[in-house]
Order: sequence, then C-alpha cells, then structure tokens
Amino acid sequence: MSDSLSRLGAERLVVTYLLAGAGTDPQARAREICFEQTVEFPEDLVPAGFIRDEVIGRVESVMEAGPGCFRAEISFPVESTARELLQLMNVVFGNISIKPGIRVERMSLPGALLRSFRGPRFGREGLRSRTKVSRRPLLCTALKPMGLAAAQLADQARQFALGGIDLIKDDHGLTDQPYATFSERVARCCEAVAEANARTGRRCVYVPNVTGRSDHLLARVDEARRRGAGALLVSPFLTGLDAMRQLADDEGVALPILAHPAFGGSFVTCATTGIAHGVLYGQLMRLAGADASIYPNFGGRFSFTREECEAIATATAEPMGTIAPIFPAPGGGMTVDRVPDMLEVYGREFILLMGAGLHRRGPDLAENARFFVDLLESM
Amino acid sequence: MSDSLSRLGAERLVVTYLLAGAGTDPQARAREICFEQTVEFPEDLVPAGFIRDEVIGRVESVMEAGPGCFRAEISFPVESTARELLQLMNVVFGNISIKPGIRVERMSLPGALLRSFRGPRFGREGLRSRTKVSRRPLLCTALKPMGLAAAQLADQARQFALGGIDLIKDDHGLTDQPYATFSERVARCCEAVAEANARTGRRCVYVPNVTGRSDHLLARVDEARRRGAGALLVSPFLTGLDAMRQLADDEGVALPILAHPAFGGSFVTCATTGIAHGVLYGQLMRLAGADASIYPNFGGRFSFTREECEAIATATAEPMGTIAPIFPAPGGGMTVDRVPDMLEVYGREFILLMGAGLHRRGPDLAENARFFVDLLESM
Repeated sequence: MSDSLSRLGAERLVVTYLLAGAGTDPQARAREICFEQTVEFPEDLVPAGFIRDEVIGRVESVMEAGPGCFRAEISFPVESTARELLQLMNVVFGNISIKPGIRVERMSLPGALLRSFRGPRFGREGLRSRTKVSRRPLLCTALKPMGLAAAQLADQARQFALGGIDLIKDDHGLTDQPYATFSERVARCCEAVAEANARTGRRCVYVPNVTGRSDHLLARVDEARRRGAGALLVSPFLTGLDAMRQLADDEGVALPILAHPAFGGSFVTCATTGIAHGVLYGQLMRLAGADASIYPNFGGRFSFTREECEAIATATAEPMGTIAPIFPAPGGGMTVDRVPDMLEVYGREFILLMGAGLHRRGPDLAENARFFVDLLESM
Repeated sequence: MSDSLSRLGAERLVVTYLLAGAGTDPQARAREICFEQTVEFPEDLVPAGFIRDEVIGRVESVMEAGPGCFRAEISFPVESTARELLQLMNVVFGNISIKPGIRVERMSLPGALLRSFRGPRFGREGLRSRTKVSRRPLLCTALKPMGLAAAQLADQARQFALGGIDLIKDDHGLTDQPYATFSERVARCCEAVAEANARTGRRCVYVPNVTGRSDHLLARVDEARRRGAGALLVSPFLTGLDAMRQLADDEGVALPILAHPAFGGSFVTCATTGIAHGVLYGQLMRLAGADASIYPNFGGRFSFTREECEAIATATAEPMGTIAPIFPAPGGGMTVDRVPDMLEVYGREFILLMGAGLHRRGPDLAENARFFVDLLESM
C-alpha cells in the first residue's frame, strides 16, 4: 500500500440510520453498524492503526428519536465506496439490510464522492426542453393492458399523442411477451407517435420499456433509439441500479430515463427497516441517473403518505453537487380529483402519471387526453 | 396478434402469497393482485375475451392461515413472464412489492417456464468436482478486513490455501478500493493460491468479488478468469439478478458463482411483506444461476431462525426441472460450536462459511484452517 493511503480523505459519507428496538445500548448498536458495513470483523481482531483509525465507520452521534428508537449518524470514508454506485449502496445498507430494525433515513454525500457521479443526463430542464413544455406539469400515460397486440398499443399511442400527452410509456409489465414483442411494439409505437407529432406539431415522446435480460439491454436500447424512441423506461430494482446509471452515462444512448419502482417496494413497506422514501426514490434514483422517478402518489391505490411523497419531491431537487434536479413522477390510480392536491405538494415541477384515469372519461382517448392537458394548462 | 395466441399455454406459474391484514374480503385482495401484476388496469376497463380470460392472474384458492392472515394461490400465464427472469420477478412481486401485507411464500414454476432457464452451470456436483471434496461439507472463508493491502490479502489467501480451505472468497465489501484495487488483489491472490495448491496438491479455489460497475462486470470477470480465479463472488441484489444469470449462462465465463445476499435483506426482514427465505435464497438464487447461496445462519450474529434456514436448504435441492441443486452457504458469525447444529440441519450438503472464526484460534491462519478442515473430515 502506498504511503499516500496511510490517511484517507477528510470528507466522509454520512448516513443517518433510524434504529428501532435498540434497547438500552444504542451506542453499541451504532458501533456494530460501523464494523458490519466496512471490515465485517470483530472489534478485537481489527488491526490497530490505519484500519482501526480510518477505514471503519465512525459513530458521529446517537440521539433518541422516540420510544425505543434512536437516530444514529455514522460516517464512512469515501474510499470505502470505491466511488462506485453499487459499493456505495453496499456500504450504506449491504449486510445490515439483513438485520431487522435498521432504516436508512438520510445519506449526506460529500463533494469528493458526488464528483464521481454524473447523475441524470437531462433532468427537469432537459425533459422540459425535449417535450417543449415550459411551465406546467408534464403529463405521462402508460400503454396498457398487457395482452393487447402491438398494433393496438400503437393505436393507443397515436390517440394519446394526438390528444397532447407529453410522455407515453410502455406499461412496466410490457417486455417481450408474444402478445406484443419488444421489436414489433417499439417499431409500431415509434411510428404512430412520429405521425401524430407531424400532425400536431408537438413533441410527444414515446418511452419504451427496455427492462429485460442483462445481455440484451444495450441491444434493446439501441433498437429503441434507431426506431426513434425519445426516452427509456427502466425498472432499476430489477435491472440493478448500476445498469440504469450505465445507460445514463453512455454518450451513445443519450436518452432521458424514467425509473419505475417495480420489485423495490420491500425497501419502504416496513417502517422499521429498509430505506426512507426520499432516499430511495429521490436521492438514489437521481444518483443512478434517472431523469424522472416514478412512485405511487398519496391518495391512490397504494399506501404512501403525503409526507413520504413530500420527502421524495424534496430529494429530487435539493442541492446535490452538480447533479441536476429530476422530476418526481407520482402515479398509481390518479384521477382528475387528485390534481389540485398534487399541485399543492409538487408545484409545477412534476410529471403527472395517469394510466386508467385517461380511459375513464369515454372511448375517445385523444379527447380524454386533450381534457387533461387543457386542465393542466389552465391551472 | 396471430391466432395461435388466442389461447395461452395450459401450464401456469403458481405463486402462493401470504396476505396479512386482509380484513373481511381476502378474495377481493387476491383478485387485486391478479390485476395489479398483469394488466394493471381496473377490472371494468379490461376488454372481454382473451385478456380477461387468459392474461389476467387467476385466484386458484384462498385459505385462512392465521388471525387476519390468508394464504392465496394465484396463477399467471407463463407467457406473461416473456420467459425472462426479470419479468418473471416482475409478475411475481413487481408492483405489489410496494403494497404492505403481501409476502411471496412459494413459487411453483411449471416445466414450460423452467425450460427457459439453465440455472447453475456447476451446482453441488460441479463444485465438489472442482474442489475435489467428495463427501464432507466444503469450507469457505473470506479475505478481510477491508483496508488491508493486496499483498496482505494475498498472504492471508496463501495461508488459508496451505491450511486446506476449499473456497477463499473476497470479503463482499472488497471491490476496487484504493487500499487493494481489483486488479492487484486478484493478480496477487490468484498467484498465492496457485502456489499453495502446487505445494499441497489440493484444489483450493480463489473467488474474487466481481460486483461493481455494470459496464465493467464482464471485463472484471475476464480479468479474474485470465488470472486463474476458480469461481466468482456476485451480490445479485446489487448487480441485478439477471447479471448473475448472464454470467452463469455465458460459455465464455464458465466459472462457479457464489451469490452474496448484500442489500437484499429488506425482502426478508419483515414477516408480513417481501419474499420468504426459501424462495429468495433458494429458488431464486438457483434460477438466477448461483452455484451456492450465501446467507446468515441461525444462531450467528443475524436473526434468521433454524426453520428459515431449513426452508432455504430444502429449496436449494428440491426438484426443479433440469435445474441442478446448489449449495446452501450459511455464515455470519459461525464458530466451531455451531458445526454440530449445522450438520444436523444441512447434512453434508453445505458450504460452511467461516470468516472471523478462522482468525480466533491463534495467529497461524494455516494452522487454524487445518484444525477446521480436520474437524469437518472427522465428522
């Protein structure tokens, strides 16, 4: 080991954990995390000097946060993350994800670490400029239901584009089923949206779902690009977080990314374990290169609270080095009645994701879409 | 859509869910899952005919499973999974992972689906033949602690190999830190283990951790292969499950894979949500190509119960089409006193993962290793 490594950088990554059921010795519990997340070695076996002084996590503070519940701030050397997203998540919540009663409440990422991440390529500003929507919330819908043929999905896309929807994504369950294969669906939907754009003069963006086999991911993205897709839908809890980061960083891809929360819900559904909503859907999606983070809004058919959604919205835009703000994209059973509440929480800076709600008003999907676009424009 | 798709295959994927707090209408709750996991569309909007009759999940049974708790069997068409691992997981637990009170208790995968998966390339038999250990449990240890230089880690590897350890893996937190970069660590550890093997005549296998950037994964694997690594350590909840499947399927890789559970604990830590231990660490790891599945054993420093570990062990070997049995690799604070209990639960068919326990007996790591190998051989 070179001499320059005998001391590590002064800036450290600080993670705030909520410890439930920490009993009478929350300090010891916090100290356990310091060891588990770095050296994974009993304290008495850790060599004195560099490793003990520098590598191991450090308890910065422990405070009571409720009955039997404590908030611990623990700092880790930036070097322990190898400046890679997956190892960062491993340090923050790798092994201790398996221990009950530990929840990641906040990550404070120092400049020395943030500089290793580009984050979203487009962010809010880039998505607004792509869709030519300068002031109001963006309107996004999903092609569904699974089981329709590619031609039927493309027809839906055409109507939505004619009606003025900004972003038309595949439903996240559409991948490469025989009902509508990836290739046929993407070809037809790209064509339909391009035709509609030519008629309306708008810049509606079709967002195919590229989530699928790891070894096919880049080929699907490439095919989507060549056909004219304007953005990509990725479910990072399925593909792995870094696959999304890779797509965002790739100059040859250069398409906005909408992140879908499928398969990652277990991080948030239990209040005493996992990762807080703002960290998971805000900080982490942003760090991993999403331009918009989809999640279920409060008051829909999922159970997120207004406060949890506010935390997500805050995390999508709070200062984070040079990493751009991204759009929160709340959805999950949204109807017209929910819009005023959403404007109150998110201001103009969100993507309204409306699926079935756009089918409810009547059989003419273009007409239904127009109604919602007009509504958003009038607000 | 071709006529042949007007009916789907008769064999369906069956998932057993445990529904907590399902209240007075568990049938309705189960039916919600059928829609959420396929069409994600309200029942009254789903077109009659093919989609309603064939694509949507089907409630096969709902039974009481305890106070306010029900067990629902729901079947899905194999076609909905597109025969891809990630979409399979998306159908099983994509959106509903975000709804509290739903736990995947079991997956019954029909032959029509299993035929699309190769599973582990080596399995128990292949790992035994690689390491030339025919009867006793295999002994695995980890190079640690993080912060040691590559030369120090390699020295540890040499001693362990001389002492007769079968599998020497990187600690899962070692990736590409400046203390011991991937390249230097892998080169030195491969060399050290090869030298030791030449002296002992044994077939000790070094298992570098290749978890890291998505776009570097194949390069790291290739480098590890060229240097002579005998297996790979992957943390699939970080890399994405399908990245591990890709490595297992790749003829050009052809190395055994040890799966590490880091970052995936939130699936199991809350009893009323997530995925049951046997499904996550057994069925799923096997389907995703791991040859051994690492998890914390009962009685160590994590909180898995004996029954949960038994469920994992069962799932690593139960009939699963042509997919081979894999090794359970329990670890997490194992000491010599735990061995009799482990033999009782796992028989001879497991990998004993011992980290710090191998450092405890004294400063001579080769001697410590010999003690444990002799112990296992005598049992």
